[in-house]
Amino acid sequence: MPGTFKMIELVGTSPISFAEAVKGAVAEAAKTVRHMDWFEVVNERGRIEDGQVTEFQVTIKIGFKIER
Amino acid sequence: MPGTFKMIELVGTSPISFAEAVKGAVAEAAKTVRHMDWFEVVNERGRIEDGQVTEFQVTIKIGFKIER
Amino acid sequence: MPGTFKMIELVGTSPISFAEAVKGAVAEAAKTVRHMDWFEVVNERGRIEDGQVTEFQVTIKIGFKIER
Amino acid sequence: MPGTFKMIELVGTSPISFAEAVKGAVAEAAKTVRHMDWFEVVNERGRIEDGQVTEFQVTIKIGFKIER
Amino acid sequence: MPGTFKMIELVGTSPISFAEAVKGAVAEAAKTVRHMDWFEVVNERGRIEDGQVTEFQVTIKIGFKIER
Amino acid sequence: MPGTFKMIELVGTSPISFAEAVKGAVAEAAKTVRHMDWFEVVNERGRIEDGQVTEFQVTIKIGFKIER
Amino acid sequence: MPGTFKMIELVGTSPISFAEAVKGAVAEAAKTVRHMDWFEVVNERGRIEDGQVTEFQVTIKIGFKIER
Amino acid sequence: MPGTFKMIELVGTSPISFAEAVKGAVAEAAKTVRHMDWFEVVNERGRIEDGQVTEFQVTIKIGFKIER
Amino acid sequence: MPGTFKMIELVGTSPISFAEAVKGAVAEAAKTVRHMDWFEVVNERGRIEDGQVTEFQVTIKIGFKIER
Amino acid sequence: MPGTFKMIELVGTSPISFAEAVKGAVAEAAKTVRHMDWFEVVNERGRIEDGQVTEFQVTIKIGFKIER
Amino acid sequence: MPGTFKMIELVGTSPISFAEAVKGAVAEAAKTVRHMDWFEVVNERGRIEDGQVTEFQVTIKIGFKIER
Amino acid sequence: MPGTFKMIELVGTSPISFAEAVKGAVAEAAKTVRHMDWFEVVNERGRIEDGQVTEFQVTIKIGFKIER
Repeated sequence: MPGTFKMIELVGTSPISFAEAVKGAVAEAAKTVRHMDWFEVVNERGRIEDGQVTEFQVTIKIGFKIER
Repeated sequence: MPGTFKMIELVGTSPISFAEAVKGAVAEAAKTVRHMDWFEVVNERGRIEDGQVTEFQVTIKIGFKIER
Repeated sequence: MPGTFKMIELVGTSPISFAEAVKGAVAEAAKTVRHMDWFEVVNERGRIEDGQVTEFQVTIKIGFKIER
Repeated sequence: MPGTFKMIELVGTSPISFAEAVKGAVAEAAKTVRHMDWFEVVNERGRIEDGQVTEFQVTIKIGFKIER
Repeated sequence: MPGTFKMIELVGTSPISFAEAVKGAVAEAAKTVRHMDWFEVVNERGRIEDGQVTEFQVTIKIGFKIER
Repeated sequence: MPGTFKMIELVGTSPISFAEAVKGAVAEAAKTVRHMDWFEVVNERGRIEDGQVTEFQVTIKIGFKIER
Repeated sequence: MPGTFKMIELVGTSPISFAEAVKGAVAEAAKTVRHMDWFEVVNERGRIEDGQVTEFQVTIKIGFKIER
Repeated sequence: MPGTFKMIELVGTSPISFAEAVKGAVAEAAKTVRHMDWFEVVNERGRIEDGQVTEFQVTIKIGFKIER
Repeated sequence: MPGTFKMIELVGTSPISFAEAVKGAVAEAAKTVRHMDWFEVVNERGRIEDGQVTEFQVTIKIGFKIER
Repeated sequence: MPGTFKMIELVGTSPISFAEAVKGAVAEAAKTVRHMDWFEVVNERGRIEDGQVTEFQVTIKIGFKIER
Repeated sequence: MPGTFKMIELVGTSPISFAEAVKGAVAEAAKTVRHMDWFEVVNERGRIEDGQVTEFQVTIKIGFKIER
Repeated sequence: MPGTFKMIELVGTSPISFAEAVKGAVAEAAKTVRHMDWFEVVNERGRIEDGQVTEFQVTIKIGFKIER
């Protein structure tokens, strides 16, 4: 993968699963970032309300090629 | 989130997925703990039997507000 | 679990989820390794193409009993 | 320090500083736990509202002697 | 906290304390970033001159909601 | 290991060895906790007096099944 | 170093060495970022093709002063 | 130590101590691996039955020279 | 910062705050060490007596230039 | 990168540099392992003799595709 | 523990056990260092010769009060 | 390696490479320390001036035998 890449850190959220939270964050990033290449999971957390898991939160880093 | 919170560490298990294992541990905790607010994934492991994954195990910390 | 166990490190991949990636790596290992007992998740990453997650990659360690 | 000690994990909060957040958590714990001996800082976070830090949050472990 | 959040990493400095260094970094960020929600302390360092601490430096991550 | 497990953190002490410190903490926990299943070593420290090691201290986490 | 600094994370690549990969990433960043002050190595990896190392990849964080 | 070394990861078990668990794993490895040079402790755990430690488990990495 | 630097590790204590504990350790070191340049916080702990925080303890590393 | 990958851990050595030590380990592995894809640096150490660095040692993990 | 403490890092060795290696390092340090107060285990390794563990090596940090 | 070893932590600097920075720190240490045996890389950083890397900084630990 020649070239230089930048990494950004995002937190995605989903009521369903960590996988959906990852997909949501990537989809959101795709609105403004091009050439995204890979992601790395940094951290998994979630919210509990009334004794039930209501939100999965996943912190990811996304790597994308710097184009000029 | 003013106040003081306590964190407990649990291991949930599920034959299906890590997400189900998290939900199971939170549901179990809900039987005796009130005011649970968030969880953090500490560790993910699992059991293999006869060459197949038969159990997903997830260690989580749960934070809940101390009420008095 | 008396005896001695060996641990190997694998990376499984799946277009669907981390859980499927784990299952795939274990199934692949089962072709040549016997007596697998547990796995531990080391790392979760993935590939992004055209702004969408196209592959989940999970690094796991698998422990199995050394038999003689 | 002969004997056996138990460690509990708390999150203290304060609008002023991390030190105050530590003191608050210890004071809260003192209502129900005796023989507390030391604490260790695990994590420091905080809340931001309207562009200003409004809460310091500190996760600590507290060690106390088990008495019987 | 539904939605997607971005995290940025800043180093704040203060001649007085780590808490002031955190506040300074957040205040600086507030000039260009909206919807900041929380911060996490990554690292604490400082400068020594003529045998005295003259600067507290704190590396923090700030999470803010991506709005569109 | 189906079910949900709780983890508690203890510090055991012994003038003889880390192994004895582990055993002491587990024996102490056994007075009030049932169904203990495994332990994990978190940290090993000790006390020195008059230039000699006089106490081994080991921090362990103990996992036990939640029964109802 | 009074003031506030921002940190960005980049991955540089080079067929020659990790040092060249660092230099490449900094040179690329210099096209758009001013006042860069220091870097920290986060991670070193590389690509292997036909049994030979063909690319060194280094993840670095770069700190630069926020000017206004 | 010129040359290239390989590292393997094993879990040794012993009812007596972590040291015995290390020795057991090394002795087991010696049946098939030659030129072992050093080991590093990765992790210490154990089993508890009926409120007593019944097994010490130690994960080690063993380094040995690749000979050809 | 051309030249070679040495790092030493100290634990400072203060009944007031972690910042004061840092300053105390640096002031103590200044009695025998010259050319101190920076410090890094390694660890924060403290003592609890009668249910109150009575001492803040901070472990720091101090870097100073080796002069000859 | 669809499929399953295995990771092995090696220590390469070189009198010249860490980069040469990496290359040496990969070249050695290439004698028996096919389809090597990437490496990750785990650890860098070295030997000192008569006050001079005489050997650079680098621990790497190598990932390669399992073929059948 | 009011006052300032210094920490030094030592590696002790023993043909018998990690505990003996700790004791040996502390005894050696006692020849030149006074007021040693505690130690922390950093790392445990060892040497293997002819397929047998011949040396236990333990890296510890020792804390001692700076007296003047 | 029977006996007791001490570890010291140094930061070496070089305008050329991390390897040169390591060599420089070891050469500097050799002026006052005898029986140095090995080093371990703790951290790699560097300085950037006018958009270019002008200094490589490497933090290492050096182990040497205590002789008496």
